[in-house]
Amino acid sequence: MTSSIPKSIAIIAGAGPGTGSAIARRFAQAYPVVLLARSRGSLDPLLRDITQNGGSAVGIPTDVTNPTSMDSTMDEIKAQLGSDLRVAAAIYNVAGKFSRKPFLEQGMEEFLGSLEPSVKGAFNFAHATLPLMVNDGGHPQKYKYPPTLIFTGATAALKGGSGLSAFAMSKFGIRAMSQSLAREFGPKGVHVSHAIIDGIINTEKTKGYGEDVPDSKIDPNWIAESYWFLHTQPRTSFTHELDLRPYVETW
Amino acid sequence: MTSSIPKSIAIIAGAGPGTGSAIARRFAQAYPVVLLARSRGSLDPLLRDITQNGGSAVGIPTDVTNPTSMDSTMDEIKAQLGSDLRVAAAIYNVAGKFSRKPFLEQGMEEFLGSLEPSVKGAFNFAHATLPLMVNDGGHPQKYKYPPTLIFTGATAALKGGSGLSAFAMSKFGIRAMSQSLAREFGPKGVHVSHAIIDGIINTEKTKGYGEDVPDSKIDPNWIAESYWFLHTQPRTSFTHELDLRPYVETW
Amino acid sequence: MTSSIPKSIAIIAGAGPGTGSAIARRFAQAYPVVLLARSRGSLDPLLRDITQNGGSAVGIPTDVTNPTSMDSTMDEIKAQLGSDLRVAAAIYNVAGKFSRKPFLEQGMEEFLGSLEPSVKGAFNFAHATLPLMVNDGGHPQKYKYPPTLIFTGATAALKGGSGLSAFAMSKFGIRAMSQSLAREFGPKGVHVSHAIIDGIINTEKTKGYGEDVPDSKIDPNWIAESYWFLHTQPRTSFTHELDLRPYVETW
Amino acid sequence: MTSSIPKSIAIIAGAGPGTGSAIARRFAQAYPVVLLARSRGSLDPLLRDITQNGGSAVGIPTDVTNPTSMDSTMDEIKAQLGSDLRVAAAIYNVAGKFSRKPFLEQGMEEFLGSLEPSVKGAFNFAHATLPLMVNDGGHPQKYKYPPTLIFTGATAALKGGSGLSAFAMSKFGIRAMSQSLAREFGPKGVHVSHAIIDGIINTEKTKGYGEDVPDSKIDPNWIAESYWFLHTQPRTSFTHELDLRPYVETW
Repeated sequence: MTSSIPKSIAIIAGAGPGTGSAIARRFAQAYPVVLLARSRGSLDPLLRDITQNGGSAVGIPTDVTNPTSMDSTMDEIKAQLGSDLRVAAAIYNVAGKFSRKPFLEQGMEEFLGSLEPSVKGAFNFAHATLPLMVNDGGHPQKYKYPPTLIFTGATAALKGGSGLSAFAMSKFGIRAMSQSLAREFGPKGVHVSHAIIDGIINTEKTKGYGEDVPDSKIDPNWIAESYWFLHTQPRTSFTHELDLRPYVETW
Repeated sequence: MTSSIPKSIAIIAGAGPGTGSAIARRFAQAYPVVLLARSRGSLDPLLRDITQNGGSAVGIPTDVTNPTSMDSTMDEIKAQLGSDLRVAAAIYNVAGKFSRKPFLEQGMEEFLGSLEPSVKGAFNFAHATLPLMVNDGGHPQKYKYPPTLIFTGATAALKGGSGLSAFAMSKFGIRAMSQSLAREFGPKGVHVSHAIIDGIINTEKTKGYGEDVPDSKIDPNWIAESYWFLHTQPRTSFTHELDLRPYVETW
Repeated sequence: MTSSIPKSIAIIAGAGPGTGSAIARRFAQAYPVVLLARSRGSLDPLLRDITQNGGSAVGIPTDVTNPTSMDSTMDEIKAQLGSDLRVAAAIYNVAGKFSRKPFLEQGMEEFLGSLEPSVKGAFNFAHATLPLMVNDGGHPQKYKYPPTLIFTGATAALKGGSGLSAFAMSKFGIRAMSQSLAREFGPKGVHVSHAIIDGIINTEKTKGYGEDVPDSKIDPNWIAESYWFLHTQPRTSFTHELDLRPYVETW
Repeated sequence: MTSSIPKSIAIIAGAGPGTGSAIARRFAQAYPVVLLARSRGSLDPLLRDITQNGGSAVGIPTDVTNPTSMDSTMDEIKAQLGSDLRVAAAIYNVAGKFSRKPFLEQGMEEFLGSLEPSVKGAFNFAHATLPLMVNDGGHPQKYKYPPTLIFTGATAALKGGSGLSAFAMSKFGIRAMSQSLAREFGPKGVHVSHAIIDGIINTEKTKGYGEDVPDSKIDPNWIAESYWFLHTQPRTSFTHELDLRPYVETW
């Protein structure tokens, strides 16, 4: 235990356009943010946007499902931002591909392919960030908010669906991990939370869907705002799961 | 549909010391608040506190389990605050008494007595406030936040317990009502939400409990803050259920 | 603790045509059955049917929501079947009326009317039968199966629905009671279980529904068979909840 | 669609001592059973036992997590039992190792090692057996019971736990698969079900645990009996999930 006060950062995995970007911009209002995505292409415009708005951001192309890639990312983070870091917030927003496909038409490779982002990626990400979440130099009271690890989930985290074995398995799995880590790291002061995003998110990709009903898609900025809210909760009052749905969603 | 813009208020049932007061103070930062409690005694200090802090508050002793009492309360609210009202936020924070008692030692009267605050009270309260939640003069867009109805729940809303038949039944019941109203009034733009308060709340009454572990009790101000957060969510992104627990809680 | 061996009976509340009758016929293969229903009319044909098949049955018109009515029913049971009784199985199959109705169009009376069968009736029934469930003269080992209390539930026990506040509240409530009693009376050797009947039941009333798809309605005899199966489980291996759905049901 | 009537068999994966053996013996009362386990050693005594009791059993050492191994097992089954087979019942009873271990002390290999039996094994097993479940030669009505696929689950399928990330993830995952396959294959007449085994099972391994309280461990024969009961349910009345707990279990 040292008396130095490590510098706080936020890390967002799955910082693509849409939800990931919105989360990154929100947390960049408070912390230097590290953005992880598969390809640099999706990172660059976001990095520009954040720095133009006075924030500080580093983008690192990373395959979170690969422990070696994740390790070298952590090394690069320390190289760029300093070695005495504390992760104030880590957001796991990597989505397995949603695909509805008859079970018997899926091969093992395809099945595992759907699972890996959740299973391996979430494991690697939590494994890399949790040690830096409790890294407060012995001065938790110097920090405004408890360190926070948030997993983005979906309706399929709550119930399976026809043709959705792999997808549901990955979302149930993420929720299992979130609940387990909450119980393990909560008593150490880490806030672990799971968000059930239930509905169509309003992004470039979903343009054209649900345009007939006003406000029928989830606003990514409000996913971000909700995650930020979770982050601000003190350890007396942690929320471990919340859902987000448009007002017209049936469920 | 008229073109007048009704005046927004917040109503809190169960505005006793502790959680109810904290919620009242929080919503009084934005709205005139109407506080309902069984006895005037518990209302007066809170009213003073709110007005001294620049808020506006009305306290009305009400038996929410009694439809006549609730009706006359609504009349008095209109008499005091004007007849063209809109309820921006209605918080149902009335707790059934928690009592763990062998099932066979409970009589019907006692059993129903435990249920009434939840069953009858929640019904009356929702019945009285929901019409004023959609009362926006046809101008929902003039209001910053969607009208919000929040029910305070508990762990016993999720699972029963030995000796807790009546308590669990009342908490399950409140959750059933919250889920049903969310589905019915959501599409009308009303945000209905249920909060699972799981842990000891830090109040006068619980002084002495859990003092050995720092921050081990839920901060009522953060229940209030969380309710306020729910209220601010736009209709694209409603949270219908969240839990609140201290970091050390086992669950 | 006496050395006499009380006589085992089964009691079914809600022994109307359809599910109740099927349950009664099934348990009558093993025990004298006591059938409770609001009116004698629905009991008589069932009593004839059971006795013609070699069973023994007593029908008592009872308002289970009324403690006095339930008390006098228990007295009559002892008058007819002897005072040294043990309830081997008690089935609570009383349904609140299913009605989907806008919340604001329901009055308190109507709302409570929907709740009473569940709340008051289940309380009365459990209160009257549980003492006779542990009444084994100190010889639990003399009985083939542990005493069993089963509550018939519905999908609405798991989630609310638009216009279903009262119905969902009653079904959530029954489930809360079942879970609580299971935890309280399980350690005393009583098996308390909740069955989620999710789908249309194949009865006289539902003739004409779903006829286009073969076997698309739940067979009441299989509800009965499932309840009987629950009854046969030894105390090492209690099932506390199961669902029953036709193969084509979506959920 | 042919007019031949394929021969019905049952397949049990995880046919080790304890639960798997009990299930095998129960289903062997009705069908030739195929028993899969990692090693021949655990199969031989069980095979002898079944054949001595008049049953018919084939044991095949199989690594269900390996698609090649599973494929050659299916070939061998057809070689031994005939190629025109129908799987009447397939039971997936392969347990991931239960290990409670601090998250940060687990490596990726270990983590995935805990997951594979559930993820890969369940996938392979369902993939290999489901085609033979709908293989009824176009005569489903010739068979007494609908084809049944049952997954053995655990409490950790419902909630996570400290140090149980991998275990909970695997159990949540199995449940997700069971729910998804139930919705996909139910309408085809296949009964898919998930059993939550919550408590210590009474086996050789658990001798010495909980001996102070009589009947405090789950009887493997009653797991088997419950699975058999599921199998007998007609398609009008499928149970998709049930729990099994000793009467003294707290939950």
